[in-house]
Formats: sequence, C-alpha cells, structure tokens
Amino acid sequence: MDEIALARVRIVLVEPAGALNVGSIARAMKNMGLRKLVLVNPYCDPLEEDARKMAVHARDILEEAVIVETLAEAIAPCERAIATTARSRSLPTALEHPSEALPWLLEAPAALIFGPEDRGLSNEELNYARRFVRIPSSDAYPSLNLAQAVAICCYELFQSSLNEPRDLSERLISPPVSLGPSAPLELIEGYYRQLEAVLLKIGYLYPHTAKSRMEKFRRLFNRSGLSADEVAMLRGILSQVEWAVSARDTLEPESFEF
Amino acid sequence: MDEIALARVRIVLVEPAGALNVGSIARAMKNMGLRKLVLVNPYCDPLEEDARKMAVHARDILEEAVIVETLAEAIAPCERAIATTARSRSLPTALEHPSEALPWLLEAPAALIFGPEDRGLSNEELNYARRFVRIPSSDAYPSLNLAQAVAICCYELFQSSLNEPRDLSERLISPPVSLGPSAPLELIEGYYRQLEAVLLKIGYLYPHTAKSRMEKFRRLFNRSGLSADEVAMLRGILSQVEWAVSARDTLEPESFEF
Repeated sequence: MDEIALARVRIVLVEPAGALNVGSIARAMKNMGLRKLVLVNPYCDPLEEDARKMAVHARDILEEAVIVETLAEAIAPCERAIATTARSRSLPTALEHPSEALPWLLEAPAALIFGPEDRGLSNEELNYARRFVRIPSSDAYPSLNLAQAVAICCYELFQSSLNEPRDLSERLISPPVSLGPSAPLELIEGYYRQLEAVLLKIGYLYPHTAKSRMEKFRRLFNRSGLSADEVAMLRGILSQVEWAVSARDTLEPESFEF
Repeated sequence: MDEIALARVRIVLVEPAGALNVGSIARAMKNMGLRKLVLVNPYCDPLEEDARKMAVHARDILEEAVIVETLAEAIAPCERAIATTARSRSLPTALEHPSEALPWLLEAPAALIFGPEDRGLSNEELNYARRFVRIPSSDAYPSLNLAQAVAICCYELFQSSLNEPRDLSERLISPPVSLGPSAPLELIEGYYRQLEAVLLKIGYLYPHTAKSRMEKFRRLFNRSGLSADEVAMLRGILSQVEWAVSARDTLEPESFEF
C-alpha cells in the first residue's frame, strides 16, 4: 500500500449539509488510508455531535478538516482533480468508472470533489476538474447517498494503492488520459483569470456572457491537461495582446481630436 | 447487467442495532440492484423514522424486509452463502477480496451475511457460510461502519453483474478522452494559420521561431480534440485581437508626432 500517495489525496465536499454524512465520510476516509478533508462553504459543523458520533475513531479527521469559501481555494495546491457526478448528458467529456480514473489521483497532489447532497456539482463546479467519475448504479434508484459515494471512491482508491495484480493490469491496460505532469491548478486558474480580463478588454467577452463562455474555455483546456510550460506560453500571448491593446488605448485620447 | 441474478442475492444482517444503518443499507441495496433484506433478531425497527429517513426512495426495501429469529432461517432457501468479517485468525479458511468472492453469489440463490455493529459475526455464525470476505482497509482504522461495508459489497456485486468485462465495455461505451465529434482537420488547419499570422503580427512570434512554437500549440490543441464550435470560438478571439491591433496600427502614424 502506498500510504503517502493515499494521504496526499484530499476529499473535497462542496456545501455538505448533513453532519451525519460528514462524520461517516471521515470514518470511511480513515478506513481507507485517506486523511485530508476540505469542506467548501459547509451548511453543517464538522465538529457537531452527529458528525462526531458517526466518525467514531476518525474524529481527528473532522478536527483537522479545513473549511474554505470557494472550490478554487479547496483545490489550489493540487495538480489533479476529479469530480464526481451522476449526470452524463450535460458533460462534454466522458464519465469514467471509479476504478479507471481514480488511480490517476495517486500520482500527484490531488483532489476528489463531491457535490452537495441535494443537487450534486453544478456545471461551473465540474469545470474545475479534468476527469469525471460516475459510480455505476441501478436505473431503479441511481442516486447514492453522499457518504456511500465517498466510501466507495475511497475503497477504490485504497484498492488501487495496494500492489495487486488487479491494480497493475488495469493501469497497464487503460493508461490515464494523462500526458505528462500537469501545471498546478492554481497556475491554471491564474491563466483563466488573465484570459477573462483580456477578452473583456478587447471586447470579445461582455460581462453578462463572460461566465458561460469561460466555462467553454475551461472545458477545452481541462481536456487537454496543460503543462506549466504551456500555461506560461498561453500567458505570454495574453501579455502580448494586452500590450498591443494598451498601446492602442494610450493613443485613443489623442485620436479623438481627429 | 444481470438484474435477476442481483435481485436473487439477499443481504442478511445479524442483530443490527442502528436504524440509521438499516435505512442506509436499504438505499445502497436499491442503488446497486439488490432487493431482498433479511434481519436476524434486530435491535431496531426497520420502519422507524431514522431508517426511513436514510432509505429515502428505498423505503419499499424496508417495508418488504423479512425479520427472522435465527441465521439458519435467514439463509434456508439459499444455495450459497458468504460471510463478511474483519478477523482472520480464528478462521480455518482464507479471507477473500470482495471482487474475488462475491461474483460467486450471482450464480445461484445466495446470501451475503453481515454481523452486528459492535462485534461482527461470531465463529458459530461464520460457520453458516462457505466463503469469507474481508474488505481490505487501513491498519490505522480497519473497522468499517456496517452500512459502508454493505454498500461496498453491493457495489462490487453490481460491478460483477455488468455483463462484459469491466475495462472492455467501458472503453467501448465511454472512451476516456472522448469529447464528441472533432472539427474537420481542414477547419483546424485554418485556425492554426490564423493563429500564426496574428501571433506574428502582435510580435509574440518571430519568423525564425514560428515553426517550433506553432508545433507546441498544435500538440496542445490536438490533445484536447477541438470541436467545430470551439474552433469558431477560438477564431472569434483571434479576429477580435486582429481588430484591436489594426486599430492601433492605423493610429500609429499620428502617434509619431508626439
């Protein structure tokens, strides 16, 4: 078992509402060798009685849980992120089986993201991830309890971390979509921010359409998995465009006179 | 998926004490295509509020749950039984991985037996089974919550019931990098040509470095597999940049005077 790789995977819960769920999740994480729990804008207190009761001997994970306000913050230090979802239609990319995608998280600082109990992850939230996992389930009742979904994913992560033939063969048969080391997500977020600012400046984006259009860019670039060099290259172009546009802008007041 | 085989597997809980657990188990069962829940001498009522709350849309499974007094009764109609346990020492036979042993339950009327939350199955109870499953877990906290353990086993059963070998079927249904139809290569080439022209114009590329730099862009975009819409979007940006730069160029002669 690769304990270090497992402990490096953070479980990110977006707006969890149930303290029982959060407690159960802490237990399932510790059962499967995971340690790092990050709550984005939670609607319950991870230290309340219900959570502690379900965590049993995993209260340390609740006590060390980190609370942040945005998903971007939650995954900032990570190089890889997978989002879980039940939907398939609205996504432009394939949904993968947990056993197929999750081993990819063990090779770099990584996040596994789960949505709120009632609605799952929004399209905007899904776009923070590069791969998407769906737990196969029965058509009769496809929607899993949040804590059960986390437990199953932690179980799959733990299995992958064991040096068993099963794990090995799977990794050989279906190499991750990956492509060399990705840029840290924080770097990529910086690129998206600069891209949005430049596109607004040159009049390609308008404030009211920026959000949906930016989602399309995120999807495109997330699919390709940017390296740090590539992010630097793309930002170099943006800086050059900014320079070009600024050069024009500084002239504009003068040009008014003609 | 072999629905009949799955529905024929009964989940047997020996002396469960937690109504929340029993409710969660009903939900996990229905999520994974199982239907038959048998409680041996339970210390809680499967129809009480906590159980119904956790079952959500699986209350039918709680309502149809069978209560019996002995484990022998619970498995009487079955041809095969597997018991789950965390212990290994006291058993005369090997503990198997869920993915290894559970498929065996799909070939005949069968039972999967779980012990009480606090003590697990006794030696006497274990002896009703022919095979034994242990869910691998971390030494730091090996003991799983009962409902999580059932959920993981139901998940493994469901995976086994999917007809084709896991890897193969999935790659056919949802290839990892898949992304819908790509744009015709001609369209993409048009984008590359425009990109190169614009980057030369804004001074990001120089004629003698253009070729190697453009190869890097090609690799990046080829990896992501551009759709026709995305090509149109990227070209829209380039056109906007061209417009911005041209606006500057037309002003340049004037600016010389200052």
